[in-house]
Amino acid sequence: MLYEINEKALKLESEGKKIIRLNLGDPDLATPNEIVEAAYAAMKAGKTKYSSSYGEKKLREKLAELHGVKAENVVITPGSKWGIFATMFLMMKGGGNVIIPTPYWTAYELIAKTLGAQTKLLRTEMENDWKVDLDKLESLIEKDTRMIILNNPNNPTSKVMDTETLDGIVEIANKKGVTILSDEIYGTISFVKTKSILEYNGNRNHILSNGFSKTFTMTGWRIGYLIANKELIDNITKLNQITINNVPVFIQEAALKALEMQKQLSTKIKEEYEERAKMASKTLAKAGFSFTKPEAPFYVFPKRPGLNSEKFTLDLLDKGVAVAPGTAFGDYREHFRISLTAPREEIETALDIISEALE
Amino acid sequence: MLYEINEKALKLESEGKKIIRLNLGDPDLATPNEIVEAAYAAMKAGKTKYSSSYGEKKLREKLAELHGVKAENVVITPGSKWGIFATMFLMMKGGGNVIIPTPYWTAYELIAKTLGAQTKLLRTEMENDWKVDLDKLESLIEKDTRMIILNNPNNPTSKVMDTETLDGIVEIANKKGVTILSDEIYGTISFVKTKSILEYNGNRNHILSNGFSKTFTMTGWRIGYLIANKELIDNITKLNQITINNVPVFIQEAALKALEMQKQLSTKIKEEYEERAKMASKTLAKAGFSFTKPEAPFYVFPKRPGLNSEKFTLDLLDKGVAVAPGTAFGDYREHFRISLTAPREEIETALDIISEALE
Repeated sequence: MLYEINEKALKLESEGKKIIRLNLGDPDLATPNEIVEAAYAAMKAGKTKYSSSYGEKKLREKLAELHGVKAENVVITPGSKWGIFATMFLMMKGGGNVIIPTPYWTAYELIAKTLGAQTKLLRTEMENDWKVDLDKLESLIEKDTRMIILNNPNNPTSKVMDTETLDGIVEIANKKGVTILSDEIYGTISFVKTKSILEYNGNRNHILSNGFSKTFTMTGWRIGYLIANKELIDNITKLNQITINNVPVFIQEAALKALEMQKQLSTKIKEEYEERAKMASKTLAKAGFSFTKPEAPFYVFPKRPGLNSEKFTLDLLDKGVAVAPGTAFGDYREHFRISLTAPREEIETALDIISEALE
Repeated sequence: MLYEINEKALKLESEGKKIIRLNLGDPDLATPNEIVEAAYAAMKAGKTKYSSSYGEKKLREKLAELHGVKAENVVITPGSKWGIFATMFLMMKGGGNVIIPTPYWTAYELIAKTLGAQTKLLRTEMENDWKVDLDKLESLIEKDTRMIILNNPNNPTSKVMDTETLDGIVEIANKKGVTILSDEIYGTISFVKTKSILEYNGNRNHILSNGFSKTFTMTGWRIGYLIANKELIDNITKLNQITINNVPVFIQEAALKALEMQKQLSTKIKEEYEERAKMASKTLAKAGFSFTKPEAPFYVFPKRPGLNSEKFTLDLLDKGVAVAPGTAFGDYREHFRISLTAPREEIETALDIISEALE
């Protein structure tokens, strides 16, 4: 439903309709100019050839340094989504199941389904501050459970996992020998402190998925990375060799530039999103929605008892506002997701339209 | 073996060794400047966001016009290899077999293996001008045969399929209800006239795989496309949505620019490769190799009776020349593949080293 809404929004726009696009985690902010210039300089320098399916050495080394691992533990992927698909493709071969706390990013379940893997959904509730119930998690793990996917900070709730819960999840996973794939794409620009899966990862059995899209407003550049044990990195690279081959080197050079300017760029981006989150929270609270306070960009996931979110979302699209129905993130039909990825005035206009539509 | 050689060559280069790289189909020519500038202009214009998993409308329309199909029959992929993987992923689900004439591009068999599909290799021989035996082909087709992969012009032989043989293959495929996936990546810059699978494709059951890498020296940009019936295009798009999402829009704009300048750009590129092919043919013939005359860029696939091509290739790499062993393309251990993708002087130097190594 998430992708259908997006294709429909694109179609309406191509027909000349004005749509306020709050349906995707795609920032309205421009990619910082320094990053664009780095890509251009690399293209002009002829960095337009095939290259290693591991990714560029310099970029892997820089990421290794930032994350306290070795370059051999890093592979560059065309977007973090590809990294997640590739990991699941390799780890779920021939069946097995994967545990996914809900609400979840749509892609996890779609990937699992496409690969013929079973999903075991672990429901969390707004009323319980979106906390994972550790007993429930442990009882879901079976012999054939190969992976737990965490998304921390979470899309769509923008909730950061508390340390105690994360400690508990890792302890259970380690005890049961289950791999955690931790998608931390919103981590660097989180408003509160987050703990990475790598902090637990003495033995490198767990996997970090990350990317440049959100931190540096580089969504359409399609570049992300995985950090894992060398064996998995080597296998992902072999899969890269027969699929995407490599991320364009000029894009990797742009990403390297982004990392070199990380502090400066991400602080600015984070501040803007924190302002927007405050503003939206105020308006939504006034309009009588329930939601947890966003602790990271870009989303709010409000609830209204009795809402039919799919119908609501489609009707809203006809009124010029695109949001995502709660059902795109699991069984959350009373919720919908607003992505704060438009200029503040547009967000305000959209929130007015949303409030009216619900009255 | 193809990819191992490449990673080893990259490693040697990173250690400061000079390697003449004739192991990949990666042109030494630069991407034409107009294409680089188009990408830069698009980046500056903010075309750095998520976009449709089908590809950009304008690019699909332009390709549809060039190939005489509708835009709905076109999907843009991050390299033609991704298109081939995605097609096989969807069509070989749950088993089945695929017929691949040999020598073949390594990726076809690796993809099939990775997907758990069976391959039925259909051997062709240099001594018979690399012709597909139609009776053999027909006898290979079983109930569970889902696809025939053609590569026309062929990598590694640079042979263009004669019309009579292609007619015969299509007739058999149609009779038996088997889909042809025709990889025509070298077609536009072929030295002789080639016939596309689309010329047979009244009913759209066959699939064209193509890309920008070879025609426009855009290998590292990772952009290609598939032309097929709408149903398959829609399914590939769904797979794109959960994997690569979209090819960067600024890269699609660069590709559109390339198509607009196609005649001018590809004529120049073709002429250069035809000159190199003539030059290499002369030297190789003088040195006593057997091979068929290249009819397209970029390869020559010489034979020397008794050659152990893997050992030969590794030894050659230590002497500073990277080529690909015949075994990377099927059971052709007396062959090796030279890619004419270096400046002429380098090719000449490499040919001298090759000739000496074989004496």
